[in-house]
Amino acid sequence: MFKVIGERINTSRKLVQAAVAERDADYIVADVKKQQEAGADYIDVNAGARIGHETDDMKWLLDIIQPIVNLPLSLDSPDPAVLEMAFKRVEKPPMINSISLEKERFDAMMPFLEGKNCKVIALCMDDAGIPDCPEDIQDRAKNLVEELNKIGIPTNCIYVDPLIQPISTDSNKGIMVLSAVRSIKAEFPGVHILGGLSNISYGLPERKIINQTFVAMMMGAGMDSAIIDPLDQKLMATIRTADMLLSHDNFCVNYLRGVRSGAIKS
Amino acid sequence: MFKVIGERINTSRKLVQAAVAERDADYIVADVKKQQEAGADYIDVNAGARIGHETDDMKWLLDIIQPIVNLPLSLDSPDPAVLEMAFKRVEKPPMINSISLEKERFDAMMPFLEGKNCKVIALCMDDAGIPDCPEDIQDRAKNLVEELNKIGIPTNCIYVDPLIQPISTDSNKGIMVLSAVRSIKAEFPGVHILGGLSNISYGLPERKIINQTFVAMMMGAGMDSAIIDPLDQKLMATIRTADMLLSHDNFCVNYLRGVRSGAIKS
Repeated sequence: MFKVIGERINTSRKLVQAAVAERDADYIVADVKKQQEAGADYIDVNAGARIGHETDDMKWLLDIIQPIVNLPLSLDSPDPAVLEMAFKRVEKPPMINSISLEKERFDAMMPFLEGKNCKVIALCMDDAGIPDCPEDIQDRAKNLVEELNKIGIPTNCIYVDPLIQPISTDSNKGIMVLSAVRSIKAEFPGVHILGGLSNISYGLPERKIINQTFVAMMMGAGMDSAIIDPLDQKLMATIRTADMLLSHDNFCVNYLRGVRSGAIKS
Repeated sequence: MFKVIGERINTSRKLVQAAVAERDADYIVADVKKQQEAGADYIDVNAGARIGHETDDMKWLLDIIQPIVNLPLSLDSPDPAVLEMAFKRVEKPPMINSISLEKERFDAMMPFLEGKNCKVIALCMDDAGIPDCPEDIQDRAKNLVEELNKIGIPTNCIYVDPLIQPISTDSNKGIMVLSAVRSIKAEFPGVHILGGLSNISYGLPERKIINQTFVAMMMGAGMDSAIIDPLDQKLMATIRTADMLLSHDNFCVNYLRGVRSGAIKS
């Protein structure tokens, strides 16, 4: 089954930032509840946008969010000190968002991750920047999986992010990442593949049809997780439909339930 | 680029049958023009439904359709005598719909196809019935490609139809055909893959979202043609978007043109 990481609680979003600045807990509670009802599997929490306030903002957000959800959280920060504090405040093993091969980030994150019971998002990014061919992506994925395995993170707890890039910048960005995902899944069948889906449509009009079409293609290639807005009903319907088509929905039970509830419609 | 074979001129459709029975040329002309405008690459013509009238109905249809389109036609009949007559009436090398491995059909079609300048739809069907595993589909595809090559039909003129089957009958029907398509394309990179797309959603509600999601997955796996209704605007928009994502649309020109014309919208 595809895992949806709800992206909405992020202080780079204007209304969330305002709610955090004003300590408006009701706004946060309502948003998180909506994400949960819409079918999120993880709630991402990112408090990085208000410079100098990340620790306090993250603490405040977690203290509000943890009591009201049964879902695990995705702790979204590049700062291991913030993550250590956050890790102690969550009830279920969280997703850690994220490690990469950029030297500074890698060196900071590895000691934090060692021995932790968590899932990890592993970005295929290094100090040379974003990858520009499938082999590049695959090499970085391999490197990340092997390094994480060494510190006790099993392959099935790793969510490789191949870095979906805008098709508007280069026509080959779609087939590049599709091909990389197939190779990574062939080499590490147990690894998960996650993507920042909406990047694909950056700079183009009518972005939703691009995101819907691409998520179906990527799921066919092996992507089984994404950081998205779970309130995007058509995208969620496409994901549920794709799950059915990929044999993750015996007797189409979830699909039919989605149709009956009105969540899935053509 | 994906090739769309417009399926509407088929006497098994009630209004088409009535128009053919009454020799209502205006109805046929209008329908074909709509398919052409909507972006069909071939117009399929099937006159099989009125028993005893196939030859006359096919002749009448071709005499009306040929003068008004620039597109090649897809001649849709199991009867080589009908196809011989039809082949002489078309201006551009047609698609022949279809050959299969069913002995009677195979033996009848091979002499007709030998030495002809045409495309051929090759159904992965034999006398044992529809295939029930990816290897079955792949074996039949290989058999068809090799036999057709022997009589002078080059691989890039062959459109293998892996027989898309309803997901409602078995959860594995989607991954079965996806896996088969990948294997066939790996073995014969030049071959085309075509599908009767709407079969996937047979028996389920809200069929359009299933068809849209599945066409994107199948295109990601290598399907590059389908027999569909080109007037299904959302499906056509998904196909155009998928073509862009698969690097068949430099600088997103076709996509942007589609958005401007209103044909592509989220």
